[in-house]
Amino acid sequence: MEPVLFYGVPHGCSFGSIVALEWLGQPYRLVRIDMLSKPDSDIFRRVTPLGATPALLLDDGEALTESFAILHNIAKRDLGRKLGFAQDTREFDRLNRMLSFLHTDFHSAFVLAWNAYKLAEDDPNREVLRAMAREKAARCYRYLQELISSREWLVGEDKTVADAYFIGIARWGEDLGLFDLKAEYPRLHEFQQKLEADKAVIFAHAIEEGWPAQSSGGFLGHIELDALSPRLAA
Amino acid sequence: MEPVLFYGVPHGCSFGSIVALEWLGQPYRLVRIDMLSKPDSDIFRRVTPLGATPALLLDDGEALTESFAILHNIAKRDLGRKLGFAQDTREFDRLNRMLSFLHTDFHSAFVLAWNAYKLAEDDPNREVLRAMAREKAARCYRYLQELISSREWLVGEDKTVADAYFIGIARWGEDLGLFDLKAEYPRLHEFQQKLEADKAVIFAHAIEEGWPAQSSGGFLGHIELDALSPRLAA
Repeated sequence: MEPVLFYGVPHGCSFGSIVALEWLGQPYRLVRIDMLSKPDSDIFRRVTPLGATPALLLDDGEALTESFAILHNIAKRDLGRKLGFAQDTREFDRLNRMLSFLHTDFHSAFVLAWNAYKLAEDDPNREVLRAMAREKAARCYRYLQELISSREWLVGEDKTVADAYFIGIARWGEDLGLFDLKAEYPRLHEFQQKLEADKAVIFAHAIEEGWPAQSSGGFLGHIELDALSPRLAA
Repeated sequence: MEPVLFYGVPHGCSFGSIVALEWLGQPYRLVRIDMLSKPDSDIFRRVTPLGATPALLLDDGEALTESFAILHNIAKRDLGRKLGFAQDTREFDRLNRMLSFLHTDFHSAFVLAWNAYKLAEDDPNREVLRAMAREKAARCYRYLQELISSREWLVGEDKTVADAYFIGIARWGEDLGLFDLKAEYPRLHEFQQKLEADKAVIFAHAIEEGWPAQSSGGFLGHIELDALSPRLAA
């Protein structure tokens, strides 16, 4: 059966996995998870023991977690699409390098600010964490802007799962009020705008917001958690 | 020519890449980088633009950064060693899942505590960050201890690059005075002890400490930064 992606709202890092699935063009389904009131469900716990999204229920019922692993799994379903690369190529290494940078340095800069977001408005630690986040994220933005000035996409001349992941995370800078990307990192902002105009990205936004969403890939619709019970591996 | 690993001291996350290179058993060299006083060197900046270690200078002079990418590169040099797995297998996905968890949740828990470490002893933010780090790391230790109770190594029955990476990071819990692993997570502590008894891990500790180090792999010795100039790709 087709894979099923559990995506988190609001504004989760699952966003990139939705975009990658659309780019792949093969059948898939979605399960929506409200991350602020996680489902008290045995199926949910079995699919993602740490309660994190995204999670991908694979064709045979095994569950996979972690964006990095899910994006690689999506990419390898059709290497001809060049969302990823064959393991014995240098491009495979370069993709891993970019995916790793985005998952560690870039993502973790914002985690500090999300931690701040959860504190009371007058908590003095709020500003400490936000300042740390801003400093770390700025370093990442500078690095990415420099890279993207000399290539078409983050890893080279092909659009890969790294670009899909990037567009789900990069927006956090503005979501969290840390940056004005257009004013501060104009070339990176242009790159972000190019991705925002992509059909798969427009689709992923609509899915997150709960609006009517037009798939240009193989989206077969949402499915309820309970309906997945027969699919789960023993 | 043989690959050259840039490793950071003290107690860097490069540790896992040294262990993985030893397990691989193929020729390699090392460059030692003091991360507290990074070299003011053009070669260093070209190899690792963000100043991070580990970095791996590949056989043809291209430089690779990010542990995740380096560990995959090491593993694929001889898939017969099973430090990693062929891309079209489920084990490949499972390894990515574990590597990603270790690089994001597990690593980033400690980054908070390293940030605290850099603050003045009487800075009230110090305790805030340490408490956050402890909470996050405890969740990871619980998860890993649960996993390791039903399998030989982190990904399954084979020792992989994930185990190499784990042993370089897990020690931070005690380095930073956050945990008494033996008392709090005894089964995970046992697993850690099994790895600590491994020849490659003993070697990596000796390398970090600057002690005489006995390679059981293909270590050809250290090399100075300046000597690498002819190796770097244009």
